[in-house]
Amino acid sequence: MSRIYLDHNATAPLRPEARDAMIAAMEACGNPSSVHAEGRKAKAIVEKARAQIATAFGADGADLVFTSGSTEGAALALAGRELHGAAIEHDAVRSWIVEDLSVDEHGVATVTDPAQSTLQLANSETGIIQDLPEGLAVTDATQAFGKLPVAFNWLGATMALISAHKLGGPKGIGAVVMKRGTDLAPQITGGGQEMGRRSGTENVIGIAGFGAAAEAASRDLANGVWDEIKEFRNILENALVAGAQETIFVGKDARRLPNTLCFATPGWKGETQVMQMDLAGFAISAGSACSSGKVRASSVLTSMGIASDVAQCAIRVSLGLGTTQDDVLRFADAWLDKQKKHRARMA
Amino acid sequence: MSRIYLDHNATAPLRPEARDAMIAAMEACGNPSSVHAEGRKAKAIVEKARAQIATAFGADGADLVFTSGSTEGAALALAGRELHGAAIEHDAVRSWIVEDLSVDEHGVATVTDPAQSTLQLANSETGIIQDLPEGLAVTDATQAFGKLPVAFNWLGATMALISAHKLGGPKGIGAVVMKRGTDLAPQITGGGQEMGRRSGTENVIGIAGFGAAAEAASRDLANGVWDEIKEFRNILENALVAGAQETIFVGKDARRLPNTLCFATPGWKGETQVMQMDLAGFAISAGSACSSGKVRASSVLTSMGIASDVAQCAIRVSLGLGTTQDDVLRFADAWLDKQKKHRARMA
Repeated sequence: MSRIYLDHNATAPLRPEARDAMIAAMEACGNPSSVHAEGRKAKAIVEKARAQIATAFGADGADLVFTSGSTEGAALALAGRELHGAAIEHDAVRSWIVEDLSVDEHGVATVTDPAQSTLQLANSETGIIQDLPEGLAVTDATQAFGKLPVAFNWLGATMALISAHKLGGPKGIGAVVMKRGTDLAPQITGGGQEMGRRSGTENVIGIAGFGAAAEAASRDLANGVWDEIKEFRNILENALVAGAQETIFVGKDARRLPNTLCFATPGWKGETQVMQMDLAGFAISAGSACSSGKVRASSVLTSMGIASDVAQCAIRVSLGLGTTQDDVLRFADAWLDKQKKHRARMA
Repeated sequence: MSRIYLDHNATAPLRPEARDAMIAAMEACGNPSSVHAEGRKAKAIVEKARAQIATAFGADGADLVFTSGSTEGAALALAGRELHGAAIEHDAVRSWIVEDLSVDEHGVATVTDPAQSTLQLANSETGIIQDLPEGLAVTDATQAFGKLPVAFNWLGATMALISAHKLGGPKGIGAVVMKRGTDLAPQITGGGQEMGRRSGTENVIGIAGFGAAAEAASRDLANGVWDEIKEFRNILENALVAGAQETIFVGKDARRLPNTLCFATPGWKGETQVMQMDLAGFAISAGSACSSGKVRASSVLTSMGIASDVAQCAIRVSLGLGTTQDDVLRFADAWLDKQKKHRARMA
């Protein structure tokens, strides 16, 4: 039986459109900074992708600076600024913030000084979506872009972080999007690429893949693909709710991403569940991928008032483009079976 | 007539081995930080490449931290350290150094305090090679790796910067190589990847390409491929020397990369030559690619005592794997023809 991948928030499989664009870009031998024909051809690939991403992200007219992903994007947008933020942010954002914004039991953060704050658009672990206040300094839109209709130009934020691999582009490429002309101190200096905001020879192949993936993601959103994914997520959630009375479903009544399901089963460690489900043929996660090696409880969940020992028993199931109804029903069966066995052992 | 690419120091065409490895890596859907089978598969791709690169770079047992290229690598290795360096360094290195090391007329820099200094292994514009002093803090090996036999473990440097696209890997991926256990303050923090030294989801496809390219580059070096390239470079140089008496050949008697030729023709701007040769079907450069948009004279050349107005008349021709004897002879004919016309106009 083939494996079922339900960890799309950690990273999504490469879209065929991205694959094709990357293979095509492999033929461009020039450096985008070179003035000769080969250089101009490579530059054209970069600029085409920049336009594709800007359009898909509703950011026409904004500045878009390519980075190696949202973790570098967070450093570029946040380092040295000491913006206010909440414990629900990704560790890459938490590195740079004063973590003093409160989060309620529904996972919603309160921003008091938007111009000096950062707030994510959607959470990677729970899928919970935030209303961004007008004038927000920075939003981490990494998980939202591609799964929700988002228009940067209407978000009210000055800067946004996005990453290709969450929407079917390659890993290792992302961008900081900002209102045109926003001041930004570069972190990586040298050749002066990206209008002096981020030096270094451009990741042309990765950028080509990002552009194609963003365009395809935008098309899928318009075609309602995520409505179907949401339906499957809800089918899965209902099946689990019916079979696991002690399990806590995080964000069930909150506005959240259509593909994400986070639930904690007290007494059954998330790490253990991930390993058991892996052996059963399912890829899921406990917390965000980058911190999966760590055993501490998720600050996303504890900040919502969930006790640390319960938070350690949470897992995340995140659906994606290829997910079928059969996939989620098979997951529900397998997980409920393990859960029953776990309860029997504990009894 | 097809174009002739003679700008390999700006960036080299993607090697077929790198292309194949990248396309294969496109199938791995997991995040290397995920503990499930898909994550472990992605992690295995990253670790295979790390081993390939370490072996090719003579760095077995050393630590290798992936970056988005040598520009980020320079920031990671140099930021906040104020090491001593020379004006021959790449702008990415010059961003972070105290530029007080002297350079003689042969392009050779003198290091007085190795532990507090950085020195490149080979220059991108002239190809001139430096002898590294034992105990050097950091060397930029970006241009040398893949063109010269280099063994990091015998270089005497504590850290080295390398980049995939200079040796036929993709653009946008590189590494900082360092003696095992060297302290390094991370610049990009968050998920704690790369043993906490460089966070962010790994560029798995790019890393796969880097690994395969490094292995292939090492094989080519062992097979003497660069001896042939050197022969063609020398044929080209001799043809130009014979036909252009006023032209200054930089580094002609210095130890330099086998593929690089830098020459200045007083009164004939490098930028103009690049454009004229581009129209004639040849890709070359004036200075390093990243600064090609700028008109100021190369600090590499002026630091060697070449007058600023002469330095502005320099171009760089850099050969690579696909270059043939016919290519260089055609270049020599075309350039000498333009040079004759230029002299006639000036007369």
